[in-house]
Amino acid sequence: KKGKEGEGGGKAAGINCEPVTGARDFYPEDMRVRNWLFGSFREVARGFSFQEYDAPVLESEELYKRKAGEEIVDQMYNFEDKGGFKVTLRPEMTPTLARMILGKTNERGETKMLLPVKWFSIPQCWRFEATQRGRKREHYQWNMDIVGVAGITAEAECLAAITTFFSNLGITAEDVGIKVNSRKVMGGIMKAKGISDEQFAAVCVIVDKLDKIGADAVIEEMVSKCSVPAPVARSIINTMSARSIKELEDQCAGLSLGPDAQASVDELKSLFDMAKSYGYADYLIFDASVVRGLAYYTGVVFECFDRSGELRAICGGGRYDRLLSLYGAQTEIPCVGFGFGDCVIMELLELKGLVPPLNRQADFLVAPFNQSMVGNAMSVAAALRASGASVDFQGEPKKKIGQTFDYANRIGADFIALVAPGEWEQGLVRIKNLRSENKDANQKDIPMADLPKWRELTWE
Amino acid sequence: KKGKEGEGGGKAAGINCEPVTGARDFYPEDMRVRNWLFGSFREVARGFSFQEYDAPVLESEELYKRKAGEEIVDQMYNFEDKGGFKVTLRPEMTPTLARMILGKTNERGETKMLLPVKWFSIPQCWRFEATQRGRKREHYQWNMDIVGVAGITAEAECLAAITTFFSNLGITAEDVGIKVNSRKVMGGIMKAKGISDEQFAAVCVIVDKLDKIGADAVIEEMVSKCSVPAPVARSIINTMSARSIKELEDQCAGLSLGPDAQASVDELKSLFDMAKSYGYADYLIFDASVVRGLAYYTGVVFECFDRSGELRAICGGGRYDRLLSLYGAQTEIPCVGFGFGDCVIMELLELKGLVPPLNRQADFLVAPFNQSMVGNAMSVAAALRASGASVDFQGEPKKKIGQTFDYANRIGADFIALVAPGEWEQGLVRIKNLRSENKDANQKDIPMADLPKWRELTWE
Repeated sequence: KKGKEGEGGGKAAGINCEPVTGARDFYPEDMRVRNWLFGSFREVARGFSFQEYDAPVLESEELYKRKAGEEIVDQMYNFEDKGGFKVTLRPEMTPTLARMILGKTNERGETKMLLPVKWFSIPQCWRFEATQRGRKREHYQWNMDIVGVAGITAEAECLAAITTFFSNLGITAEDVGIKVNSRKVMGGIMKAKGISDEQFAAVCVIVDKLDKIGADAVIEEMVSKCSVPAPVARSIINTMSARSIKELEDQCAGLSLGPDAQASVDELKSLFDMAKSYGYADYLIFDASVVRGLAYYTGVVFECFDRSGELRAICGGGRYDRLLSLYGAQTEIPCVGFGFGDCVIMELLELKGLVPPLNRQADFLVAPFNQSMVGNAMSVAAALRASGASVDFQGEPKKKIGQTFDYANRIGADFIALVAPGEWEQGLVRIKNLRSENKDANQKDIPMADLPKWRELTWE
Repeated sequence: KKGKEGEGGGKAAGINCEPVTGARDFYPEDMRVRNWLFGSFREVARGFSFQEYDAPVLESEELYKRKAGEEIVDQMYNFEDKGGFKVTLRPEMTPTLARMILGKTNERGETKMLLPVKWFSIPQCWRFEATQRGRKREHYQWNMDIVGVAGITAEAECLAAITTFFSNLGITAEDVGIKVNSRKVMGGIMKAKGISDEQFAAVCVIVDKLDKIGADAVIEEMVSKCSVPAPVARSIINTMSARSIKELEDQCAGLSLGPDAQASVDELKSLFDMAKSYGYADYLIFDASVVRGLAYYTGVVFECFDRSGELRAICGGGRYDRLLSLYGAQTEIPCVGFGFGDCVIMELLELKGLVPPLNRQADFLVAPFNQSMVGNAMSVAAALRASGASVDFQGEPKKKIGQTFDYANRIGADFIALVAPGEWEQGLVRIKNLRSENKDANQKDIPMADLPKWRELTWE
């Protein structure tokens, strides 16, 4: 459907009518869907008392200088600006959040902000991927983050927000599931198997690709990129097959896990208990194979998928307690959050028939009967708008009244206010009710002064 | 306040905590203001039955290849992407609108869309200006456009939308004015003085700078860049001093204006009549010096200013009937629209004290009394949220109840739901009303099952 770069797109034009490669235009019919989806995100955020924030789509490239081999960093939409400064269209929002939090934090790690910070945003994020034509280069991503809560209740709140969104829209625990794991637990296990703290993040980025590239390729990468001995790599992959906390504990029976890892197992258990208290336990599944592909996660990680297995991940997140200290904060500031893209969820909602009808709608079309009535019709439009009505104004009188009715129907108008000389001389405006079933009682001539009370008109 | 490029900004961090040069972060307190302003834009658009659209912030550079010397084109935030394609962060929205309209238009100039198209958007627009440090590089700009109406009613509707926005927010015709002129009229006059159609757009871009650089510099530029003879240039500047249509007509008495220019004078007069019918005539002023700095305007142009003269232009717009044919459309498609930035209007609103208090607000803080109550408190939060309440959840129980009250007050909560063992054993939750004047009747223990009816509680 999309034209290629540099080629002419629109039939009408000398210019390319397509948006830049991999990006989307939002025509009004698309925008209604987007506004409905974003409105649903916002409604959940309001329910959880999260505050909205935003930042420029352009960020300094240094914010993403991470060495763990993450796809998101390798595929940045970065460039050098005319001042020689290295910038990028943001690939994700979390580093921006961290930057903004640090911007209000002093040298001793004390923030001027009220903690915990609970923020949300729906930023557009970009990537540049040269190889695969046709893959999208931007998406919007609902982000919710809690800064300043070390305990597992922060994870529980994030998961509650996601599942509230699902149930608000009619997506059940039979439609989707959220796989939960803990990097602290996996880290403890890997440490017991000989993986150093320094290797851990890069190993996570690799094993995250298990589903995509398979066990053999993952093992090979662990060996080649992280110098993990092949038998250790294989035993890590085996551990990741656990699908319950019990199973994981059994697998680890022979290992001497540190107290931190053991505490993290208990924490995971209490997260599942909280999910029961809150009422969303049906959505959760323990899955030791989920580690997420971002380097900065340090604790619980989670990833949401459709149970049919047809779609890519719907959303994902986790705890990232060390990102702010990585950026230079003198104390560790605990953080938990998730990112929830706008594309996969729309695929799912459409598959399930859960997108409501989102038709164009207006209260009135104000139509002057002829050219001499245009000014009077404007005063009618002004009066109706002042009363809160949504009013389309027909600036060019139509030759046939049928054209006016046709246009009114196509814009979804409930009423036509027809401003014609006969009624106008008597101080009246003719209101036609386009929603009335009764064709004998679908029209009223009402005094100009009564227009603001149009909602109170009775139609039988 | 802002750090320089490449320098460390935040006190806490090794990274620069500032946004990229010239761009703004929106912390929650800033975002509340932005959401209020954008909400006011949207409310007007809804009243006028305009539909929202959007497009990528990144556009192909070719969309802005205009040769008239406009500042907006000279200062693009453009770059070559990794695929060698020339792109830019959009400097303005109108070319994008034109591209999208053309994308639904066939070779014969017939569009698949219902005409007239009435669209609005609030895009972020960017510029890159190397010389002046500290000048902003981005702003948001409310755009409203009507496509497919050749008559002056389209201009009248655009001006009605702008003045409705003003009066909704309490900005009177004594605070601001909208200078109106017509490029068709000015074009007719200039033609009579010997300016060719080809020179016209570039001449407009130059004379638009009259206020900024003065008459002598404008005349010099007209001579040097457009080869206009100096006496002609001076006589054009003189014509631009007219401050009423009558005055302009008097000045042109000796010139033989074509019928088009004469018709355009009548059209201008009828625009002022329509403004009277609609009720916003007080805001309008004829001003022959207003031509706008964009090359593509062809008819009525307008520009809004604060009457105190302290601020830059608040918004501007006009008719651009030939932009779509410039892009290759086979027929002329009449267009009118305006752009209304978010910065100058906020300065004005703050100067006039018209920004309402926009405090943080929540319905509830749900607070577990101790660790053992956390799960129960979660079920309370879930029940309240299901009833539509905005609920902040205190994940880490406080040692002192005073800390909970302090936090609740700082987030603007109306109520605290305190989940404590004593009440919980009886199936009750303690609700504290933080808005109650009566300190003896500001607390109730209510059954869990009654939580969804919290709005019906009576407090005396």
